[in-house]
Amino acid sequence: MSVFITFEGPDGSGKTTHLKLLADWLRDQGYDVLETREPGGTAIGERVRAIVLDRASQEMEATTEILLFSAARAQHVGQIIRPHLSRGGVVLCDRYADSTLAYQGYGRGLDLPTLRVINAFATSGLRPALIVYLDVPAAEGLERRQRAKGGEWNRLDAETLAFHQRVRSGYLSLASEEPHRWAIINAARPTEVVQQEIRERVKKVLTAAS
Amino acid sequence: MSVFITFEGPDGSGKTTHLKLLADWLRDQGYDVLETREPGGTAIGERVRAIVLDRASQEMEATTEILLFSAARAQHVGQIIRPHLSRGGVVLCDRYADSTLAYQGYGRGLDLPTLRVINAFATSGLRPALIVYLDVPAAEGLERRQRAKGGEWNRLDAETLAFHQRVRSGYLSLASEEPHRWAIINAARPTEVVQQEIRERVKKVLTAAS
Repeated sequence: MSVFITFEGPDGSGKTTHLKLLADWLRDQGYDVLETREPGGTAIGERVRAIVLDRASQEMEATTEILLFSAARAQHVGQIIRPHLSRGGVVLCDRYADSTLAYQGYGRGLDLPTLRVINAFATSGLRPALIVYLDVPAAEGLERRQRAKGGEWNRLDAETLAFHQRVRSGYLSLASEEPHRWAIINAARPTEVVQQEIRERVKKVLTAAS
Repeated sequence: MSVFITFEGPDGSGKTTHLKLLADWLRDQGYDVLETREPGGTAIGERVRAIVLDRASQEMEATTEILLFSAARAQHVGQIIRPHLSRGGVVLCDRYADSTLAYQGYGRGLDLPTLRVINAFATSGLRPALIVYLDVPAAEGLERRQRAKGGEWNRLDAETLAFHQRVRSGYLSLASEEPHRWAIINAARPTEVVQQEIRERVKKVLTAAS
């Protein structure tokens, strides 16, 4: 039985940890699990990613960057995700199309309907059965990263905080449109508690899909 | 005074020749003319193009390819075309967004409304004041290329002919939606006659823009 599950949430919310724990748990139950994240190891995706990350690409247009990310996503979906689902496997993906809506749309203010069309095109309409959103208050996530860098709070941080608050509101707004598809998990709790709640939601999806 | 003019039409219809002749004529009149075509010499665009053209990219998804072409277009518009227009220049571009609609939309059957949204995003809404469409019957253009290769007519050619007929119908359909923006030029005539007709249409656009 094939199921596609994505993880969303700010950096530092524990996405990678929880995706890994969930994958192990599912494998113990005999599921064929693929853990992935964009660009997903495709040769084409890696080359596209290299262009985006190159320091010489600082002259890059914002539109160019989004189209390149979308191209890498299209290749990841067609070459990695869909084939695994076709073989009856479970795919767990660290960030997916909803990141574009939250960060570029709600965060940076790009036109949401346009981003939705580009997402639908890049994913050829493939949507996750479940989106696990690891929710952390924006200030807390930012403070955690700030402490890690050992820096001080300043005006730039205030702008950054406002940005992350818009992103979080965006995620919550997306979730409210399709509550059946989203699991909003309070990630500011111990790992075991968070993981247990994720597994409960995943169980329901697996039952519904079987 | 800034004016943006694009050339469309099948390979072999004379786009390159006529664009060059028009550029020379405009320069003689004192216009600051930029002749360009995608990816337009931007470092980012060239790298994107290299990915698309690479033989190792044969596993490329159709969606990936369109998004990569669109990314190169976005960079071309932002880094080359818009700056020249901002300086008050004339830009002549060999193929532009309408090629995507004609070839991928009408020719290959991809969803036109989606392609229009991606085009508008990639070009940040920049549309040409005039589109010069060099019209050649599909059979004639194909036959010309076939003769150049020294090959024989076969089933593949019949499919190719059907494709090029759909592309041509697509261009004519796009032109009928916005007749003021399109110049449909019968390109199966002597170069001087065709070029003269192009110049007449361009004159009108320049007068309207001044």
